[in-house]
Amino acid sequence: MSSLVTSGVGDSMALALAEARAAGARGEVPVGALLLDAQGHVLAQAGNQVEADADPTAHAEMLVIRAAARRLGTPRLEGCSLVVTLEPCAMCAQAIALARVRRLVFGAYDPKGGGVEHGARVFERATCHHRPEVIGGVRASEAGALMRAFFQERR
Amino acid sequence: MSSLVTSGVGDSMALALAEARAAGARGEVPVGALLLDAQGHVLAQAGNQVEADADPTAHAEMLVIRAAARRLGTPRLEGCSLVVTLEPCAMCAQAIALARVRRLVFGAYDPKGGGVEHGARVFERATCHHRPEVIGGVRASEAGALMRAFFQERR
Repeated sequence: MSSLVTSGVGDSMALALAEARAAGARGEVPVGALLLDAQGHVLAQAGNQVEADADPTAHAEMLVIRAAARRLGTPRLEGCSLVVTLEPCAMCAQAIALARVRRLVFGAYDPKGGGVEHGARVFERATCHHRPEVIGGVRASEAGALMRAFFQERR
Repeated sequence: MSSLVTSGVGDSMALALAEARAAGARGEVPVGALLLDAQGHVLAQAGNQVEADADPTAHAEMLVIRAAARRLGTPRLEGCSLVVTLEPCAMCAQAIALARVRRLVFGAYDPKGGGVEHGARVFERATCHHRPEVIGGVRASEAGALMRAFFQERR
């Protein structure tokens, strides 16, 4: 276990935002995520690595789910929370459900690519067999500003 | 490149079914998948490895996408086809879209967990920015029988 214990959602989001900024500096879409156990210990943290890993599935959420599951030795992350700077896409939302994550905290809403409050709305479907508690919009303006700056630079 | 070239959808599905059977024999949900390049060469093949890898994202589709992308050195699998024994869930469907897979061929329909023709219907959403050609129901009875036998044994 890491000795790092976050004292709350704001703390965790600050760490996730730092991961997002680091991802952006590497030329990745600036999204960062943390996976916390039931006591708030950080089990995994990551930023997007799609380009660096040549892996279309290497979104920050997928990386922390996989790393935390490997660390705990089980594919089931019951009691855990996932904190991410952007509303997860349908891939990541379904992965969160499959991993039985208890709580999802996200930053900016993503009308163009989100799969929680937009588009596929994965958790609302009868085909979704585990629904996490969802808290959206945490430090949304900071997360959103990172995304806008990244895509404006690339236009 | 592998020297193996499949001559058509039926051939590829036979290989995917063999991967599904092998997964079932290991105690995994019996789903198998292949990733083919534009010429029909097999870039990757796999069965589910969720339990063995302690990885909730280790569905057959995700494994072949990741392996093929690693092999080609790019997260974009343009021109490629994915063949899988079961209708993909929302996670795998969105991964197929993110990877820009040209064609998806699947076996059995999955009303309980599918995300293509059921539930999230990922490819039909405005948040999905790449839609593969979809061919469903190929050798569906064999793929479905594998699934039913697996879950009946575990009841």
